Amino acid sequence: MGNGTETELKKCTILSSIIDNKYRAQIPEIVDRIANSCSDKKCFDHVDAAIIPSRESMIDIIDLIKDVLFPGYFGDQTVDRSILPYHIGNEVTILFERLSKQITDSIIHECGRYEENCAECIERGQEETLKFLEKIPYIRSMLASDVIAAYDGDPAAKSYDEIIFSYPGIFAMTVYRSAHELHRQGISIIPRIMTEHAHSLVGIDIHPGARIGEGFFIDHGTGVVIGETCRIGKNVRVYQGVTLGSLSFPKDETGNLIRGEKRHPTIEDDVIVYSNATILGGDTVIGARSVIGGNVWLTRSVPPDTKVVIEEPHLIFKEKH
Amino acid sequence: MGNGTETELKKCTILSSIIDNKYRAQIPEIVDRIANSCSDKKCFDHVDAAIIPSRESMIDIIDLIKDVLFPGYFGDQTVDRSILPYHIGNEVTILFERLSKQITDSIIHECGRYEENCAECIERGQEETLKFLEKIPYIRSMLASDVIAAYDGDPAAKSYDEIIFSYPGIFAMTVYRSAHELHRQGISIIPRIMTEHAHSLVGIDIHPGARIGEGFFIDHGTGVVIGETCRIGKNVRVYQGVTLGSLSFPKDETGNLIRGEKRHPTIEDDVIVYSNATILGGDTVIGARSVIGGNVWLTRSVPPDTKVVIEEPHLIFKEKH
Amino acid sequence: MGNGTETELKKCTILSSIIDNKYRAQIPEIVDRIANSCSDKKCFDHVDAAIIPSRESMIDIIDLIKDVLFPGYFGDQTVDRSILPYHIGNEVTILFERLSKQITDSIIHECGRYEENCAECIERGQEETLKFLEKIPYIRSMLASDVIAAYDGDPAAKSYDEIIFSYPGIFAMTVYRSAHELHRQGISIIPRIMTEHAHSLVGIDIHPGARIGEGFFIDHGTGVVIGETCRIGKNVRVYQGVTLGSLSFPKDETGNLIRGEKRHPTIEDDVIVYSNATILGGDTVIGARSVIGGNVWLTRSVPPDTKVVIEEPHLIFKEKH
Repeated sequence: MGNGTETELKKCTILSSIIDNKYRAQIPEIVDRIANSCSDKKCFDHVDAAIIPSRESMIDIIDLIKDVLFPGYFGDQTVDRSILPYHIGNEVTILFERLSKQITDSIIHECGRYEENCAECIERGQEETLKFLEKIPYIRSMLASDVIAAYDGDPAAKSYDEIIFSYPGIFAMTVYRSAHELHRQGISIIPRIMTEHAHSLVGIDIHPGARIGEGFFIDHGTGVVIGETCRIGKNVRVYQGVTLGSLSFPKDETGNLIRGEKRHPTIEDDVIVYSNATILGGDTVIGARSVIGGNVWLTRSVPPDTKVVIEEPHLIFKEKH
Repeated sequence: MGNGTETELKKCTILSSIIDNKYRAQIPEIVDRIANSCSDKKCFDHVDAAIIPSRESMIDIIDLIKDVLFPGYFGDQTVDRSILPYHIGNEVTILFERLSKQITDSIIHECGRYEENCAECIERGQEETLKFLEKIPYIRSMLASDVIAAYDGDPAAKSYDEIIFSYPGIFAMTVYRSAHELHRQGISIIPRIMTEHAHSLVGIDIHPGARIGEGFFIDHGTGVVIGETCRIGKNVRVYQGVTLGSLSFPKDETGNLIRGEKRHPTIEDDVIVYSNATILGGDTVIGARSVIGGNVWLTRSVPPDTKVVIEEPHLIFKEKH
Repeated sequence: MGNGTETELKKCTILSSIIDNKYRAQIPEIVDRIANSCSDKKCFDHVDAAIIPSRESMIDIIDLIKDVLFPGYFGDQTVDRSILPYHIGNEVTILFERLSKQITDSIIHECGRYEENCAECIERGQEETLKFLEKIPYIRSMLASDVIAAYDGDPAAKSYDEIIFSYPGIFAMTVYRSAHELHRQGISIIPRIMTEHAHSLVGIDIHPGARIGEGFFIDHGTGVVIGETCRIGKNVRVYQGVTLGSLSFPKDETGNLIRGEKRHPTIEDDVIVYSNATILGGDTVIGARSVIGGNVWLTRSVPPDTKVVIEEPHLIFKEKH
């Protein structure tokens, strides 16, 4: 490219910043139309509405929770035993401040309570936050069982540290196990924001309502879907692309979806589900110690100690011409 | 771990910052080799090239667009009705500034116009930005239909707000519907940067060239691929892992790929496509109100009101020894 | 919503910040319990441990590497030929500083060497960093072949620039090709942190230990899994959802997993693997120029020039009642 062009390029860059903005003059009219489009009831806005939890704040809070659950692994600080109580004390205090704000906002948002007793909402926000913090040692021990399950289930794993640092399944479980506890406390919106954040980062979609026992290992994980009413036992292992989903959506007599009913399968202890298998239905029970092969599509129950494999589909081998 | 070790650790940390950098001396030679490797024509650089749109800026712009499309939901500010016009006015003005810079850069980059009439490019950049802003009320109403479709299609959805806050499919559609309008205006690079950003966040890969009617709902979504020349009607619902793809790649007589031809299927109104189904080919038409079952692999058309399910593959149940 | 409510809302917001924090008083007790839960050996912490590599720093370093590998494409600066050596010189110097810190930390962490000869670890950290920087021209040429393969393999690709800017497969390969070189040098933890970062961004999970020849193209990519001991030849193309995985996990006589053995398939030159195909096993070899159809499940070898397609499963077409 010649010098002439380079000069032209520079001229263009300068021009670009000084050229007359004749189109800017039309902005006010556009703004009017956009603002008015909010009032035609066909669009969604969140104007004049109650305080709402913030997605951005929840993402920061997830980082804090991760650091409290695995002290010394994340963050830029080396932690030694002597300062550990201060370190955790500091993090838990910040966590209390931030999480209680979000939980309170979600309570106020949910019940529209601001027309009633506002102080009660705020108090409940703090109470629920404390209840969550009290569960941290329990969540830690559950996650420790998940880390050990990953090491025992993956020959590519070199150390526990590598798993905690880099395994997407552990991140998904860290977020899910925290969100699930908030979900059990009846907190709305926040648990789903949390698990959808993990879903967006690692492609593993676990509804906060699912119940999952200790020692759960998700390998690779992209595309895994675990539905709201799943019940999963201890030491279960699933691979990428596994769906534990619903088979049909019951509707009430007026044609509206019935929400909350058990629609997703039950997986008993020590089951392995290989990649891209799909297990559907609220009455489907996979018996303990069973192995579900890759690509299997299951909509009925399986007794304990069963191995289910797909009959290998006939492959056609052709010589390329 | 004993105190000796801790002391050693500290010594090591200090040493690490003062140790003689004898390897640094070799950096200039490495830099030379890297810089020279740019001129051997086998590598890609973007040196001496025209202004280019910035991926980072486009990500900020997507956040702005999201806030204009769903006022009050995102961002850290509560919006009330009285200040709504100012709020939107402010956001739209910033959006105009930033987006017109990116669009202008993409126009300059695309046509290599800087050798010609630079002012014209800049003017077209602003004109196209304005054209896009004018479509915002339309995009909002399309997205509102998508939110309603999500609520009507998912028993796990608790409220419209939860859907807007956390559903990956709504985020993907927000970005796709915006990028599609820019794509229709003939803007290059930017629409694809936008949809690939959404793809990276939520695992849903919609080409900005696809045409999608109102009330489109993608549930879970990880692994969904919707190709460039798809045509999708109204009120269609698809699940995770669904591919609407191409069957073969026609080449011209010189063996080069023919670009732009219709290679992806047409999905008519009110169709449901369950998880991991694959529908391929530019001549494939799925008739209105049809239901395509999970894991189905389809390369031919289906008449309206048809239910297509895979013949359940034979499963082998073995007792584990 | 009436004014009364708005006033109530404002009151509530103010109250929320002044209300008595009676729950705060319980934090110290909770902190104690959390800190103690670290010592029961059932939880993981990284307290009193050696310096560890930082995930956050590695993400910054990946951005730097990307900019050195594709000068002028990313970042906010237009680069022209005359300043190119300074630009690269500056970036490579920063890269050396930051990467050598992380590599050193990973070496110290890995060998627990801080009890021995600390200076040696630090020296090796710098030496390995330099070794990596020397490979940059090679990595660039490999990536250039990947970009060309993407253009030649995707009719939707409009330009090389669009591919470099926005294709998730190119990002995954940029990170993998860099991480693989560090992995070959025996650096621990860091390569896996790098590829898991890419996995999290684009849903493509390539183990840094896999060996992949030039001209590799991953289209769409979500759900792709390429295992640790894969061997992939030149000009191979794979689509979304393809798994190149292991068939079984050999254990030693004490029941522990054997790590490091070849468990993943070999793919020879010029092979194409279509979406959601699964190829498993360390002894499985896909011969050169073969084409593996979508959804195929393969656990045995295929001779060169073979086309393998799944026998189309019987579809049941029902008229909807």
